[in-house]
Amino acid sequence: MSGGNEGKMISGKTVAEHNTRESCWIIVHGKVYDVTEFLDDHPGGSKIILKYAGKDATEEYDPIHPPDAITTNLPPEKHLGAVDQSSVERVEVKITDAEKERLARVDARPPLSEILNLHDFEAIAKLVMTEKAWAYYSSAADDEITNRENHIAYHRIWFRPRIMRDVTRVDFTTKILGHDSSMPIYMTATALGKLGHPDGELNLTRAAAKHGVIQMIPTLASCSFDELVDGAKPGQVQFMQLYVNKDRAITKRIVQHAEERGVKGLFITVDAPQLGRREKDMRQKFDDEGANVQKGDASVDRNQGAARAISSFIDPGLSWKDLDWFKSITKMPIILKGVQCWEDAFIAYDQGCAGIVLSNHGGRQLDFARSGIEVLVEVVEKFKEKRGITFPRPGFEIFVDGGVRRATDVLKAVALGATAVGIGRPFLYAYSSYGPEGIDQALTILRDEFEMNMRLLGAPTIKDVVPDMVDARSISTHVVAVPGDRLYDSNYDSMQSATLKAAAKAKL
Amino acid sequence: MSGGNEGKMISGKTVAEHNTRESCWIIVHGKVYDVTEFLDDHPGGSKIILKYAGKDATEEYDPIHPPDAITTNLPPEKHLGAVDQSSVERVEVKITDAEKERLARVDARPPLSEILNLHDFEAIAKLVMTEKAWAYYSSAADDEITNRENHIAYHRIWFRPRIMRDVTRVDFTTKILGHDSSMPIYMTATALGKLGHPDGELNLTRAAAKHGVIQMIPTLASCSFDELVDGAKPGQVQFMQLYVNKDRAITKRIVQHAEERGVKGLFITVDAPQLGRREKDMRQKFDDEGANVQKGDASVDRNQGAARAISSFIDPGLSWKDLDWFKSITKMPIILKGVQCWEDAFIAYDQGCAGIVLSNHGGRQLDFARSGIEVLVEVVEKFKEKRGITFPRPGFEIFVDGGVRRATDVLKAVALGATAVGIGRPFLYAYSSYGPEGIDQALTILRDEFEMNMRLLGAPTIKDVVPDMVDARSISTHVVAVPGDRLYDSNYDSMQSATLKAAAKAKL
Amino acid sequence: MSGGNEGKMISGKTVAEHNTRESCWIIVHGKVYDVTEFLDDHPGGSKIILKYAGKDATEEYDPIHPPDAITTNLPPEKHLGAVDQSSVERVEVKITDAEKERLARVDARPPLSEILNLHDFEAIAKLVMTEKAWAYYSSAADDEITNRENHIAYHRIWFRPRIMRDVTRVDFTTKILGHDSSMPIYMTATALGKLGHPDGELNLTRAAAKHGVIQMIPTLASCSFDELVDGAKPGQVQFMQLYVNKDRAITKRIVQHAEERGVKGLFITVDAPQLGRREKDMRQKFDDEGANVQKGDASVDRNQGAARAISSFIDPGLSWKDLDWFKSITKMPIILKGVQCWEDAFIAYDQGCAGIVLSNHGGRQLDFARSGIEVLVEVVEKFKEKRGITFPRPGFEIFVDGGVRRATDVLKAVALGATAVGIGRPFLYAYSSYGPEGIDQALTILRDEFEMNMRLLGAPTIKDVVPDMVDARSISTHVVAVPGDRLYDSNYDSMQSATLKAAAKAKL
Amino acid sequence: MSGGNEGKMISGKTVAEHNTRESCWIIVHGKVYDVTEFLDDHPGGSKIILKYAGKDATEEYDPIHPPDAITTNLPPEKHLGAVDQSSVERVEVKITDAEKERLARVDARPPLSEILNLHDFEAIAKLVMTEKAWAYYSSAADDEITNRENHIAYHRIWFRPRIMRDVTRVDFTTKILGHDSSMPIYMTATALGKLGHPDGELNLTRAAAKHGVIQMIPTLASCSFDELVDGAKPGQVQFMQLYVNKDRAITKRIVQHAEERGVKGLFITVDAPQLGRREKDMRQKFDDEGANVQKGDASVDRNQGAARAISSFIDPGLSWKDLDWFKSITKMPIILKGVQCWEDAFIAYDQGCAGIVLSNHGGRQLDFARSGIEVLVEVVEKFKEKRGITFPRPGFEIFVDGGVRRATDVLKAVALGATAVGIGRPFLYAYSSYGPEGIDQALTILRDEFEMNMRLLGAPTIKDVVPDMVDARSISTHVVAVPGDRLYDSNYDSMQSATLKAAAKAKL
Repeated sequence: MSGGNEGKMISGKTVAEHNTRESCWIIVHGKVYDVTEFLDDHPGGSKIILKYAGKDATEEYDPIHPPDAITTNLPPEKHLGAVDQSSVERVEVKITDAEKERLARVDARPPLSEILNLHDFEAIAKLVMTEKAWAYYSSAADDEITNRENHIAYHRIWFRPRIMRDVTRVDFTTKILGHDSSMPIYMTATALGKLGHPDGELNLTRAAAKHGVIQMIPTLASCSFDELVDGAKPGQVQFMQLYVNKDRAITKRIVQHAEERGVKGLFITVDAPQLGRREKDMRQKFDDEGANVQKGDASVDRNQGAARAISSFIDPGLSWKDLDWFKSITKMPIILKGVQCWEDAFIAYDQGCAGIVLSNHGGRQLDFARSGIEVLVEVVEKFKEKRGITFPRPGFEIFVDGGVRRATDVLKAVALGATAVGIGRPFLYAYSSYGPEGIDQALTILRDEFEMNMRLLGAPTIKDVVPDMVDARSISTHVVAVPGDRLYDSNYDSMQSATLKAAAKAKL
Repeated sequence: MSGGNEGKMISGKTVAEHNTRESCWIIVHGKVYDVTEFLDDHPGGSKIILKYAGKDATEEYDPIHPPDAITTNLPPEKHLGAVDQSSVERVEVKITDAEKERLARVDARPPLSEILNLHDFEAIAKLVMTEKAWAYYSSAADDEITNRENHIAYHRIWFRPRIMRDVTRVDFTTKILGHDSSMPIYMTATALGKLGHPDGELNLTRAAAKHGVIQMIPTLASCSFDELVDGAKPGQVQFMQLYVNKDRAITKRIVQHAEERGVKGLFITVDAPQLGRREKDMRQKFDDEGANVQKGDASVDRNQGAARAISSFIDPGLSWKDLDWFKSITKMPIILKGVQCWEDAFIAYDQGCAGIVLSNHGGRQLDFARSGIEVLVEVVEKFKEKRGITFPRPGFEIFVDGGVRRATDVLKAVALGATAVGIGRPFLYAYSSYGPEGIDQALTILRDEFEMNMRLLGAPTIKDVVPDMVDARSISTHVVAVPGDRLYDSNYDSMQSATLKAAAKAKL
Repeated sequence: MSGGNEGKMISGKTVAEHNTRESCWIIVHGKVYDVTEFLDDHPGGSKIILKYAGKDATEEYDPIHPPDAITTNLPPEKHLGAVDQSSVERVEVKITDAEKERLARVDARPPLSEILNLHDFEAIAKLVMTEKAWAYYSSAADDEITNRENHIAYHRIWFRPRIMRDVTRVDFTTKILGHDSSMPIYMTATALGKLGHPDGELNLTRAAAKHGVIQMIPTLASCSFDELVDGAKPGQVQFMQLYVNKDRAITKRIVQHAEERGVKGLFITVDAPQLGRREKDMRQKFDDEGANVQKGDASVDRNQGAARAISSFIDPGLSWKDLDWFKSITKMPIILKGVQCWEDAFIAYDQGCAGIVLSNHGGRQLDFARSGIEVLVEVVEKFKEKRGITFPRPGFEIFVDGGVRRATDVLKAVALGATAVGIGRPFLYAYSSYGPEGIDQALTILRDEFEMNMRLLGAPTIKDVVPDMVDARSISTHVVAVPGDRLYDSNYDSMQSATLKAAAKAKL
Repeated sequence: MSGGNEGKMISGKTVAEHNTRESCWIIVHGKVYDVTEFLDDHPGGSKIILKYAGKDATEEYDPIHPPDAITTNLPPEKHLGAVDQSSVERVEVKITDAEKERLARVDARPPLSEILNLHDFEAIAKLVMTEKAWAYYSSAADDEITNRENHIAYHRIWFRPRIMRDVTRVDFTTKILGHDSSMPIYMTATALGKLGHPDGELNLTRAAAKHGVIQMIPTLASCSFDELVDGAKPGQVQFMQLYVNKDRAITKRIVQHAEERGVKGLFITVDAPQLGRREKDMRQKFDDEGANVQKGDASVDRNQGAARAISSFIDPGLSWKDLDWFKSITKMPIILKGVQCWEDAFIAYDQGCAGIVLSNHGGRQLDFARSGIEVLVEVVEKFKEKRGITFPRPGFEIFVDGGVRRATDVLKAVALGATAVGIGRPFLYAYSSYGPEGIDQALTILRDEFEMNMRLLGAPTIKDVVPDMVDARSISTHVVAVPGDRLYDSNYDSMQSATLKAAAKAKL
């Protein structure tokens, strides 16, 4: 996989001379690469590379690329050889005051025993992650309406619990595509896992093993695909998320490699022909780079470039007629991730997919796309009405992701017909705030919540979590309050409770 | 009820030597107990007991246990004898600054005449109760959505008052299970009454007598059952709330004892096969114990342990087939407390229950359970539709609890078919803030509100409070506003009223 | 009307000796009264009278009583005679700091030309009125839900304006009970008008004359009935609002006197068999009196007493069968004020009333009563459905009051079938903030708003304001948002707009 | 176009003598005008002119009048001649502190590359525009409810995107009245463009040319009509917005001149028989003029006068029967701008209009008028139901304007049947904050958003954006939340997330 210059040794001084847009060499993990021609194709823009022209870029490179990204993307002849490390001038890393404060916050994290729910991980992650990482993970499309809708849509669904049922033992194990899962959830694919923790997605692989849940390996992981498969325990089930490449040969190679390595399900992302603009993330980058960015300079190109670059890798031409080809290259069950209306659910069903994920990509793609849980109600209803089919249903499984924070959220989806629910950000926040213990604790919390809430629902097993247990009639009501009457409101004197005696109050 | 060592006298010094997990003695009310083997079974965790190992724990014990809790739970041989009080080293109680401030707030309470409604008691209670007590009383499950829904659901019901009716005299007395009540309310069961006031639930017993309302005695009262029955006036009606024990012999003993002592109704809690997690309460405990709690230490066990311990007492296996057994051991009318959908209401009716309480346990069990008042509308509607039965109806009475703060709330429930409404927290807050005078005043306020509002409704008697008097069509609408457009909102310049002249304003 | 002691002259010293509960004399407008036996019957409680025992109470008396209140309520023998003013010790009025600040705010009022709408008067009134007056005018029942609902219910109604209609001239004159009105509004009855301005309701009488609108004279005016009739211009139409007295002879005298004096319509209040508790008002009184009020003292009695006292004057026994009697004692058209559902509207219609006012007493009586505008939609719908009758309709006119702040509010009611809309508080605030010029300006603003908005609606005359011009489908939707997810919300990082450069921003 | 005194030269001193209401001369662009008789007809009131009596008013005049306004409105004999500039005393312009701060803010604008969306322009414009300009642009009618509703109505519409469609190329060009447009938007007419930038509406003309979109020239532009036509590129399509003058001869001249100059569509404003009151704008003027404005003085007249003056120019008598006349004087397609219900849409269709704009004038006319997007749903539905006609439809095109900030908003309107959407304020804010580069960037942003979002919708062309792609069922739901329970809310203790250790937190 490496080039033909493996044996060659280059001095740091030589590298340092290639520090311009015209000739740009960088060092990554002790190897020297000529990236001059790659500058304009870099998904992250040329500017960030030029910052390290002639220097060691490893520290910047690691959290956002799998180890093999550079060797995969550069032709072998651009792999110039090894660098003589002793001759490389160390880039002095200045720890800013902001970073010092962040590190102090890391030290001040509360003990893990005080983390009571998934929200708590997010609260701590927000305080202890780097701004860049937080912005990347938390940001979403446009005004982030869909992003928040994903969560609050669950609040429009209420329970109708049953009583007087023997719930001495509750069992929330289930089957996902025929494989055991200890709970009706799975770890959905999310990108750039090392931004939050040096072990990246491996944190998830290991916790998945321990807790008996299934991880979906992302195309854009920080760890390489093989690292994540190698990290699994014998027999541990993993799925794979796929961005389809314009170059179908690459896609074929990836898919068949995954199948060979034992991956049990292929989740093809269909909601991202072009990656969304996430303004919070973009704004963070401006902050990062100071105020000296001017109109027309590289930063603009870079931002436009990110979209363009990724468009040139992800195929916006992917269409229904590609499905047969996929079936011809793999025996893995194929699931479409990002279905958003019943019409497309029907096509997927008719074309022999093994399932669909009702998802809007965590609100990161089309703003005002509906939440997965809302689409679930529509899809299940239409399948019943037009095909007489009910869910959950082996052979064609429906998954949902986005906005989940509590086991009750998951149980609502299950009651409405979902096989399982994908959880993404909460797990990132769990290991970003507390490392491996964090993700372990997150899964423990969920397990406890499942046990408690299935008891309270009167459902001893997942099969007992049925449609009658929820009232979802308000799910499609998208209400925006009439704009307030500001003058009336400012005139209204709010009611006041009884309070302490004035004199005493002043003294207290 | 005490052990065989009654006559024995033990020195404080001897007790003080048993101050470890391996041998742990404590003093309660002048008696010495060996609790070593009980440590792991203590519902409140071992840590809190170990804090008093070898010492006098009475002050900590009293507010959260009925006097006979220790003798009931420990085998007689662990009752070691009396302690020589003079030799007990007094545990010096340090009054913290926070406690001093709290006591100053107690002194600064406004006169009771300034308490105008039930909200006011809560406002004062929040200021004058200990943090622990406030956290225990006020906390609820998960995100406390159901807890707040219980109150605001009443805001979706509006009145259709009638005019030109002679309301010179209004009579809001009613019958509850055939017994007189001066108002269509009762005091529902709540646990650990001494946290708010040293007399605990006796405050309620006495006020109930004075005001002619019925008290439901809780299984988890701080006062013992017999204290509360002894505290009643001759002829005073009391009900009993029951958590069913796995050991049916214990349950049988409790139920039959209650019947012998004259209790008039048995309310079996059916919404708590496992006690809910109340995170606000849990978080308060962390605060209480400082920041030195680490992962894996006793505090974690304790919290998990509380659930487990109580699970081993409350029977999660309770089911419909147990009903016949209950009917075989008592003649008291049986009412199921915690019914949450019409299907279960029908079963209760068909199995000969005397009534049901539509309740979600004050929002302390399953979050996103619907409010009792919402379930009431559904239950009454279905009974009418499927059975042709209307409510209120002697022989099968429907009660509601949760979220009530005004007589208007109660009148809405009555109009919709409820016989009476249970009130819990507001009465706790009333006596926690002002002692016996507080609960007396709370009932006086309610009485005044009933008189006023029945006049304004045009209803001279409770029978005249009919379904047509309310518009409850919005009751099942669970609306969540579409997430706000933060950028648009921050750009909007709010309207401003006319205001004082600038110069003058600056001077003022 | 005065007693038999008119000629008698009493010294201030003698009066000053009667300064106890056992013998309590007071001076009002230079006359001495023995109020000892009246103390317990005083609607405002005994305490406030006792404050002036043996002293001159005129200044306190005036704003809250019509001049003849004392002579009407005390038997002639208690009118002891005139006082020798020179011998009366002047009660020194201390101007508090708060009062000084209030007077400074009065001086700082913006010029009237800056008052652009009715909200503005309220904003200024809130700043310049005494706290007591503001509390009395602005307060409402219980949690003031209905009070605010009255306004916002109008926000659920939207316009469907018509275009391309000749609106060169717009004419918004109309007929109310057959009498000309320059706009489809009238001044509804409100109590204690002198709290806001020494001329009290006379301000309204005069402005009504100038602007060609109709005033409804309140039973509980600060000015006497005759003062308000005498204050009218020749031909000026006035209505009368009536609280029915238990003593029908008094009511008969009042009604027939009104008819003799030329009053054109009798509006009988039917929504107040007992006057509502207004807690904001009650709380203000506690503030006023300091913290030395204790449980069981006079203040409690006074508050309870106010309700009782007024109950003993207003007849809670008023019922439909009284209507014939009213028709027998007067030829004035009879309108019921406070109808709140279609059933009662039908009875009023069938019993020959001339109209109804759909009102909840400004939210001051039954909280959660629906707004008049909501009831209007129901009433009009039912009349059409069950009787085939449409509105507006001479012979049976429907009025609405409560919550109006804009001409658009009024036009919505007119479109839905109301003949006219009553406006209360806004006019009080207008003269309380700016005296007679204020109320004049308020009516000018409304006139301008009517002209503008009828043009924009495409309605040249009031007849052209038709049901199709509004969409009121949401009127009965009483929505309460699901309680917020506080943890999720606190974790959400709000979107941020572009902003100034950091360095520059710091400098600015 | 100038008067007969062109050659005459007048000294500044002579002009300065005519500085009273009785004889008022002013200088504009080096010419002297006698405006004495015009004072009372000035739409902006006499006061502002009198401020410049005898002086050079050019600087004040320019931003709010087209260059030819004065020559058009004054008879030739009032054009007195040229002024000898050397003899004119310069009016010293004092730069206030507020203005200095504003200029500093202008300098501190972030680079244009940090402007990510249309909201951002508004955020910056609010900071860098003069208060007067901001108030004029941003203000709306009454309580500005409709103004804000225009935006949030879009939030009640959600997408149903399609997947697996080849969106390699997306094409969002369209035809508007048969003319090419690069996007389904146009620049709608807005008044007084120079308030924001000295080039006024020319900024829009030039950017429209560059980006291939169509500009609608406003009647009340700051630039003259001919300037804006002259500013266009050869072949550039422009429309014209028309306020119809009472004097039809003037209207005829304007319309025929426009047609001669190549204007391609005549948009007749039908929602403004009288210009709305915009209180925020009015209030800003008071601030501007200090607190010395008293009741009854010129400012009141001016404000009333503005409405009157403009009423005397715009014809409130415009009606359907005028349409034939318009068709007789021009061949341009006629579109009615300001249609607000289906009934009027039908009339426009039946009378041969080429289209309609569903608009409420940016919320500046009738408050509580519904948003254009809501009316669109109604109109399209009714056309389908009653006429069997669907949209978009050449021959009768439907446009919408108001509240648009994102390409997604536009795509919702297009999906529902609109041909294109008018954008007004956002473009004003774009050039007011950044001049020509600003409006260029605004259009670039929109183009990028269209590309992205059409891909994500699965719509390769505008024709593929169909009704099934949106869920607009909530569009007519005008919800106002029940007023909050302030006492309950203040008692509720909000949930708190896990947080940093107290000690550490204090230190940080």
